[in-house]
Amino acid sequence: MPPVKGQSLRINLNRLLERINELAEIGAIDGGGVCRMALSDEDRRGRDRVVGWMRELGLDISVDRIGNVIAIRRGTEPGDPVLTGSHIDTVATGGRFDGTLGVLAGLEVIATLNQADLTTRIPIGVGFFTNEEGARFAPDMMGSAVHQGVFDVEEMLEVVGTDGLILGDALDNTGYAGEAPTGSFHAECFIELHIEQGPVLENEGYEIGAVESVQGISWTEYRLTGVSNHAGTTPMHLRHDAGYVAAAIAVEARRIAGEMGGDQVATVGVSTLNPGLVNVIAKEALVTVDLRNTSEAKLQQAEHRMAEFVAKICEDEGLSFTSRSLARFKPVKFDPGMIALVADTATSLGYKTRRMPSGAGHDAQMFAPNCPTAMIFVPSRDGISHNVAEFTEAEHIRAGANVLLQLMLQKSA
Amino acid sequence: MPPVKGQSLRINLNRLLERINELAEIGAIDGGGVCRMALSDEDRRGRDRVVGWMRELGLDISVDRIGNVIAIRRGTEPGDPVLTGSHIDTVATGGRFDGTLGVLAGLEVIATLNQADLTTRIPIGVGFFTNEEGARFAPDMMGSAVHQGVFDVEEMLEVVGTDGLILGDALDNTGYAGEAPTGSFHAECFIELHIEQGPVLENEGYEIGAVESVQGISWTEYRLTGVSNHAGTTPMHLRHDAGYVAAAIAVEARRIAGEMGGDQVATVGVSTLNPGLVNVIAKEALVTVDLRNTSEAKLQQAEHRMAEFVAKICEDEGLSFTSRSLARFKPVKFDPGMIALVADTATSLGYKTRRMPSGAGHDAQMFAPNCPTAMIFVPSRDGISHNVAEFTEAEHIRAGANVLLQLMLQKSA
Repeated sequence: MPPVKGQSLRINLNRLLERINELAEIGAIDGGGVCRMALSDEDRRGRDRVVGWMRELGLDISVDRIGNVIAIRRGTEPGDPVLTGSHIDTVATGGRFDGTLGVLAGLEVIATLNQADLTTRIPIGVGFFTNEEGARFAPDMMGSAVHQGVFDVEEMLEVVGTDGLILGDALDNTGYAGEAPTGSFHAECFIELHIEQGPVLENEGYEIGAVESVQGISWTEYRLTGVSNHAGTTPMHLRHDAGYVAAAIAVEARRIAGEMGGDQVATVGVSTLNPGLVNVIAKEALVTVDLRNTSEAKLQQAEHRMAEFVAKICEDEGLSFTSRSLARFKPVKFDPGMIALVADTATSLGYKTRRMPSGAGHDAQMFAPNCPTAMIFVPSRDGISHNVAEFTEAEHIRAGANVLLQLMLQKSA
Repeated sequence: MPPVKGQSLRINLNRLLERINELAEIGAIDGGGVCRMALSDEDRRGRDRVVGWMRELGLDISVDRIGNVIAIRRGTEPGDPVLTGSHIDTVATGGRFDGTLGVLAGLEVIATLNQADLTTRIPIGVGFFTNEEGARFAPDMMGSAVHQGVFDVEEMLEVVGTDGLILGDALDNTGYAGEAPTGSFHAECFIELHIEQGPVLENEGYEIGAVESVQGISWTEYRLTGVSNHAGTTPMHLRHDAGYVAAAIAVEARRIAGEMGGDQVATVGVSTLNPGLVNVIAKEALVTVDLRNTSEAKLQQAEHRMAEFVAKICEDEGLSFTSRSLARFKPVKFDPGMIALVADTATSLGYKTRRMPSGAGHDAQMFAPNCPTAMIFVPSRDGISHNVAEFTEAEHIRAGANVLLQLMLQKSA
């Protein structure tokens, strides 16, 4: 690599940590975690704070029709920007780093360049994307998918949330229903810094992960309908118990993942019984199944096995059911050149680096078909995420942000 | 049997059905069902209506400290009353006959005697007991248990409901926190008319069941605590998934019932996951297990197997848990003389009658240790109860109420 302007620059760790801590106060929950569900009032307040910082940094801010916010720092020449970013929404019991780190590290890169009075050749930018988590409105990675033309904006604005609110109305309430068009934004390249959210880097003693691929994701919701009846007087063989079938689905999901092995994972995170009383056989159940694999063929195999099991057990128990896909993303492979650049840059900065897949979905995967894309992972303590105990060491945050800085400098030089 | 006064009397079916329909309007829900949870505002309104009818019939009404209401019709001599009764509270999605039939048939017996101007030798009475269902406050059969000295009234007044309200406060809100003492009431005998809530009488073409015994009931609540984590990045073998264990418990409950066979039943009607999101491994789960058997030894065997399974799977999955008994009643055998009297009376009235156990718990079982006790069952269509579709034919209601009338006449003569 030829030397680029700013090669010796380093981010200011304290300034970055202060912003992370300040943003974590918005929606703070017990145990140091954050509840800032997409398009909630906490999300609105978080957005206001980040946009305030973007203004202070002198960036050109645009908000698109689904509430994605992109802030651009001009270069000495016009052109598509070298873009970074992530999300600031969280799950209900989330941590303070998931998503947020990528957005605030992007701001820190820009603050570092501002302080050094260094202007890149082509523009650089940082964005945050609406509803990455999908915890309130399915599917997840919604904003980045709309941004990159994967989902239709009109369709997404009609999505109904877990609380019954329509996404478009929730977006209006935040004041972030912008006017910028969606599906037409082109970046020179996209780089996302994110916490690993898994145990691999920590367990193996690495500081930086160069992400090669993202697991495919399949979310299916099953609504099961049986017959509500008395728990004492109804012989076992005459039951049509939606609660039992919901449980059997969760146990089968675990069994499928175990039998398939490899990186196949399966999770039943939602299981709701109606009426949900001690002595009443449940009439209805709502269950979600989350399946992931880096191989599309294997993911399809897992989906097929699950669907067959549900059909069979509902027939055996005399239940009717409906199923609905809440999210479906094929596995993604990132750009080989970009992956190599992440690995080389991290190594040249002295960080112990490995290549790895991502078990979680990320906004970056929506950019991958449209521009060279890569991700930088930093370790998660004990592999814990989507949990108030989520934590990443300050030195790992420094490492990730410095790799991001140097990558953006190289790509915009 | 020697002939008794009133042997040719019959109840007025229309008057009884009118009262059943009128009471079903209080707390009416879609599909013809009723939601009149114990000590709710609907329960209060239902109580007011029944007490109004008791007053119209000229009865001496007393309300005890847990809200049980007993209405006595004097005899020509003083003495302990021949008592009938049941409950008017329902589950959240209940029917209009469960409990209510026994109370209103008791009123109909008295209305029939009033109309015939027939005074029994010893008093007769009809009561309704607080919180038989246990759907809002556990344990079930609470009022009759307190009435007969099985539970301590002070302890029950402190019970916290599923909605967080304390029973004593909910009782105060209804205005039915009475002053009559509990645990000291003695009845000459107790007879409860109830719908079967199961399919046996209908399937076999019987009109009346003479109940010989009641299944023992064991309700256990398990609170499971694991680790909330990301559904994509957490390898299967590193999970501490409270949702999976909750599901495995429900599947095991079904397996235990299947393996034990006989009349063993097992139900998981409550299973609540926290945080309950598609892509988050559940940190916590709340599960209830309802086990019933007519044999105390077998019920203990089922409890033991369940407890062992929970301890083992929590250890395997790395979960902690607490368990709590929500209700525990031993199987009850009714008085042989009373059972024979029910069967003989029903047969002499021309009804096809069989002896049978009860799969559900009933207020009558609380009287069984203290006085001769029996129950009369009438068929439930399709065996359905605890469901808005609960239904009993008018002719079966007539049959049950006439058997009750003649039994009460014989016992009070």
